[in-house]
Amino acid sequence: MAEEMYRNVDAHGLEKLVSALFVHAGLTEHDAAFMGECLTYADRRGIHSHGVRWAPRYAASLAAGHLNAKAVAKVVLERGATAIVDGDRGVGHIAVKFAMDIAIRKAKEFGNATVGIRNNSHCGAVAYYAQQAADAGCIGFAATTGGTMIAPWGGLDRRVGLNPISWAAPTGKGFTYNLDMAPSIVAGSKIEMARDRGEPIATDWAYDAEGNPTTDPLAVLSHGGTLAPVGGYKGVGLGVAADILCSVLSGGRYGEGEEPNHGGGMIVQAIDIEHFQPLAEFTGRMDRLVDWFKSSRVKDGVDGVYLPGELEAGRNAVRSHSGIPLDIPTRSALHKAAETAGVAYDIEL
Amino acid sequence: MAEEMYRNVDAHGLEKLVSALFVHAGLTEHDAAFMGECLTYADRRGIHSHGVRWAPRYAASLAAGHLNAKAVAKVVLERGATAIVDGDRGVGHIAVKFAMDIAIRKAKEFGNATVGIRNNSHCGAVAYYAQQAADAGCIGFAATTGGTMIAPWGGLDRRVGLNPISWAAPTGKGFTYNLDMAPSIVAGSKIEMARDRGEPIATDWAYDAEGNPTTDPLAVLSHGGTLAPVGGYKGVGLGVAADILCSVLSGGRYGEGEEPNHGGGMIVQAIDIEHFQPLAEFTGRMDRLVDWFKSSRVKDGVDGVYLPGELEAGRNAVRSHSGIPLDIPTRSALHKAAETAGVAYDIEL
Repeated sequence: MAEEMYRNVDAHGLEKLVSALFVHAGLTEHDAAFMGECLTYADRRGIHSHGVRWAPRYAASLAAGHLNAKAVAKVVLERGATAIVDGDRGVGHIAVKFAMDIAIRKAKEFGNATVGIRNNSHCGAVAYYAQQAADAGCIGFAATTGGTMIAPWGGLDRRVGLNPISWAAPTGKGFTYNLDMAPSIVAGSKIEMARDRGEPIATDWAYDAEGNPTTDPLAVLSHGGTLAPVGGYKGVGLGVAADILCSVLSGGRYGEGEEPNHGGGMIVQAIDIEHFQPLAEFTGRMDRLVDWFKSSRVKDGVDGVYLPGELEAGRNAVRSHSGIPLDIPTRSALHKAAETAGVAYDIEL
Repeated sequence: MAEEMYRNVDAHGLEKLVSALFVHAGLTEHDAAFMGECLTYADRRGIHSHGVRWAPRYAASLAAGHLNAKAVAKVVLERGATAIVDGDRGVGHIAVKFAMDIAIRKAKEFGNATVGIRNNSHCGAVAYYAQQAADAGCIGFAATTGGTMIAPWGGLDRRVGLNPISWAAPTGKGFTYNLDMAPSIVAGSKIEMARDRGEPIATDWAYDAEGNPTTDPLAVLSHGGTLAPVGGYKGVGLGVAADILCSVLSGGRYGEGEEPNHGGGMIVQAIDIEHFQPLAEFTGRMDRLVDWFKSSRVKDGVDGVYLPGELEAGRNAVRSHSGIPLDIPTRSALHKAAETAGVAYDIEL
């Protein structure tokens, strides 16, 4: 009998394993613990495309020196309510969290703040950083450059990044409004996951190198294909806006060939709500917005309508005690990485 | 012979007529001149959905007292790099321009700034305000609430606004990067224009009140239909994000029934580029991004690929001397408004 594709894995044990992999890869205990928490946060919320499946890849990149295990993120420019953080070519998540901590502090002082990050690498789900701000009583915004995989509208070649943007705002409803979206119909990782599972992709997700719709993940990933942008030219425009905010402004890399040594760029912003109104008044207004939104009639066969972040918060609550469903490629990669590193773990992969 | 749908109208004469209509409606010479410039700016760039076709409607609303002809936009809260502007229930454009002037000034001081606007009305193309910031050496962001015309994903009722967002950034290429997009596949005004011209709409633009695709503008506008969001749930999330930024934060109205006396809300943000790098370095990097984008191969039958704002800038240059093509409903409405007001004009409508 074939092994089942998904198995529930204990969230706490998974976090411990991921942290141990990063300690073995040379990160400090503090940074490794954060990475365990940050990656399982994505999986707990159901965003597996940015979750623990990345841990073995990051560990391999650290071992190979593509990522700097001894990186220390630092402020290289600081003026008023703005700053630029250099990620020191480390695991990307660490510098972006550091940058949002600065943005929140500055927002409390000035009302709002913008911090750019450069010389950094893949930083996972930007929802994490926007959430930091919301948890601190701010409206948070975070964006990052991603792989260059979208063609200009009417064009054929990869020119625009799969650059996700996220906005988050607190409510009084037990979840945080948290939109995290790539400018493509689906995130690039979803096409990688289909490839890894040997599954076809939907016809409206991507094009081959000649601009024809395709269901073959390899035609997209390995043979010059591109991902379909949301709303046609609008998604292209959103992707370029993020390239400008994340990389042109911070001095990071965009596209290809442009200052490759500067690494990937990100931007984080925080707006302190209490500079505008008492936080309780804001969350009260958010709650009325949520009630109004959810009072909509639903289509036949639909169980309800949900705000961005709402289903994710529900999954997080459930999975924190009943486990995280991981697919075979992810479990297998974690198992191999743990064996290679000689790291013990007490979960069934 | 039927009259032709479009006729080129002299841009300068059109601006003078629109300004005169607003002077007659009770605005100061200064505000009326701005409205003439702001509305023809949209038409010169080809954004007719937000152009002079609105002038007769605004004039009628001013005459009826729905809009306050004696409005004076004012700062009601100012803290650090943030402020809230009250639009005094006037023509919406005036308060948003005022707010962006404040945001630019604060961005020059603090590095970035956020200004909310409330108690305001329809403010046209938000591209105008983002452009203000770009012209001043900033990255500009502007958003406004629009009519509530999008259903939650999986839902049937109007719950989310057609809230456009705009980002603008300077280049050295003779145009400003300027993305201005509603979270719907098309702007609501395009459906109104199809109705006014007696034309059907495309099948993927909108749904009727039961969630079925429709080509009938009236099923959408007059019988409870909704507009299709870009990228499904992503467009819904973008619309809600703008509701939060524009209205929950500033104290404006969102949805229906929520504090209707507070009027529509907007947000403007400016990031001063020179807080991050010299402006010439930024525009140089923008130019390399533009070159890279435009180096893409194009599909058969496509004449080229364009950045947001590029075609608009080209149209603006041409139309400023060869005239603006206006359709019959717009010319007829302007003609009637001018006759009613007893305003003379020297253009052929």
